[in-house]
Amino acid sequence: MFSITEFAEMSPEMARNLCRNGDLVRPTAGISTGYTQANLVVLPKDLAYDFLVFCQRNPKPCPLLDVTEPGLAEARITAPGSDLRTDLPRYRVWEKGELVEEPLQVTKYWKRDMVGFLLGCSFTFEGALLNRGIPVRHIEEGRNVPMYITNIQCEKAGSLEGPMVVSMRPVPSEMITRTVLTTARFPSVHGAPVHIGDPGKIGIKDMGRPDFGDSVTVKEGEIPVFWACGVTPQAALMRSKPSFALTHSPGHMFITDRRDDDYAVF
Amino acid sequence: MFSITEFAEMSPEMARNLCRNGDLVRPTAGISTGYTQANLVVLPKDLAYDFLVFCQRNPKPCPLLDVTEPGLAEARITAPGSDLRTDLPRYRVWEKGELVEEPLQVTKYWKRDMVGFLLGCSFTFEGALLNRGIPVRHIEEGRNVPMYITNIQCEKAGSLEGPMVVSMRPVPSEMITRTVLTTARFPSVHGAPVHIGDPGKIGIKDMGRPDFGDSVTVKEGEIPVFWACGVTPQAALMRSKPSFALTHSPGHMFITDRRDDDYAVF
Repeated sequence: MFSITEFAEMSPEMARNLCRNGDLVRPTAGISTGYTQANLVVLPKDLAYDFLVFCQRNPKPCPLLDVTEPGLAEARITAPGSDLRTDLPRYRVWEKGELVEEPLQVTKYWKRDMVGFLLGCSFTFEGALLNRGIPVRHIEEGRNVPMYITNIQCEKAGSLEGPMVVSMRPVPSEMITRTVLTTARFPSVHGAPVHIGDPGKIGIKDMGRPDFGDSVTVKEGEIPVFWACGVTPQAALMRSKPSFALTHSPGHMFITDRRDDDYAVF
Repeated sequence: MFSITEFAEMSPEMARNLCRNGDLVRPTAGISTGYTQANLVVLPKDLAYDFLVFCQRNPKPCPLLDVTEPGLAEARITAPGSDLRTDLPRYRVWEKGELVEEPLQVTKYWKRDMVGFLLGCSFTFEGALLNRGIPVRHIEEGRNVPMYITNIQCEKAGSLEGPMVVSMRPVPSEMITRTVLTTARFPSVHGAPVHIGDPGKIGIKDMGRPDFGDSVTVKEGEIPVFWACGVTPQAALMRSKPSFALTHSPGHMFITDRRDDDYAVF
């Protein structure tokens, strides 16, 4: 119904409205290029405090972009007029840490005491890498980014704890400096790498078998580069088995009105 | 009892222990040079959630460095083994927004449901400015930094709202670029300036009459540079008149084990 170019040039508001009307049911990669996409986590207020503190203590894996007022579903700061209950293409409903449904809207599940959290995703810095001529292998190979559970422990907050999950992108050694500087510009969206080189040093035993996502080719002369990953907070959360939670469905992100470069510090 | 050099070279732990034993009762400027000093705000848990969200929404004026577990008084992340009830030289006790006491310890006021917040202070980036050869006028003139209430509104969170307060430092025009880049390195401790030049543009009517602190000389060829100020969250908080709150006494900061450069992103 829309061409690749039409999707890329679509305003975030139009994309959200299409979702709201049930006319956009697909992953959001490539939609509204240059606008920041975000992960969604929705929790009852009683768990929201611990989640806020967990994000404050672990800012690299948990880049919090927006928090709704309890009971309200508008992402007032990053997307005024939006409705987090309807404006994503697909959701996941969790009960006691178990996935129970993957609906297109979650209006009927949104209770008065719920708080919505939007967390930055790696699309933001991948755009910056591509703009600087740095290859992003999993995009080239049409796969999901490989993600690994590390031996780096997050700082605990209340009931929430767990290891840091990282994403990996192989980078030609002559581009490592540029890669570090490019992603350091975005400290509020994962920022600079947490580790470069030997995967064993952060507890990764087999790069060919990621814990999440797909493996990708690491070519001769390339060095694996690891960034803190937004799966970390969701993994910590699911471990605590909250009575109820809503999230986006993987790849089906919330598209904000903020531009990726709004999150650059220099 | 200690020389200027002994204070400067003192470990943060020793400085905190001196406070704990009542042997250090003075402003902390110049103590444990290079280590990050922080503002303290202590609130009952029921207000802590709004304060956390306010800080998340307004990261430039509200750089949150550490949050205690409810009821615990240890700054576990930034100063393991510390006790926020005793390790600052002087405190303020607030009831319904009114200052009622300025004791040397607050152990008897610390209730089970209280949460301690440590917020970054401008000492961190002033050290970086001085290291780069950029003059800091209020230090030269032995005054407190001038602070002004602006017409920039903070993002509201629950009951907390208010204007952004800024601090001002006059900078020779040929050093403005260096000043921006130097402070941009510290996005988690106020970061780059929020405004440079014409004070009227941000609602400041008379630079000679700051709302907090002292006025300083602006010399020929200097441009006023404005940074988001840590007084902002305290002002928003006091406006909401919480039933009870504790803070540090102005200038009597908490000295963490973190080095200023730990907060640099590059």
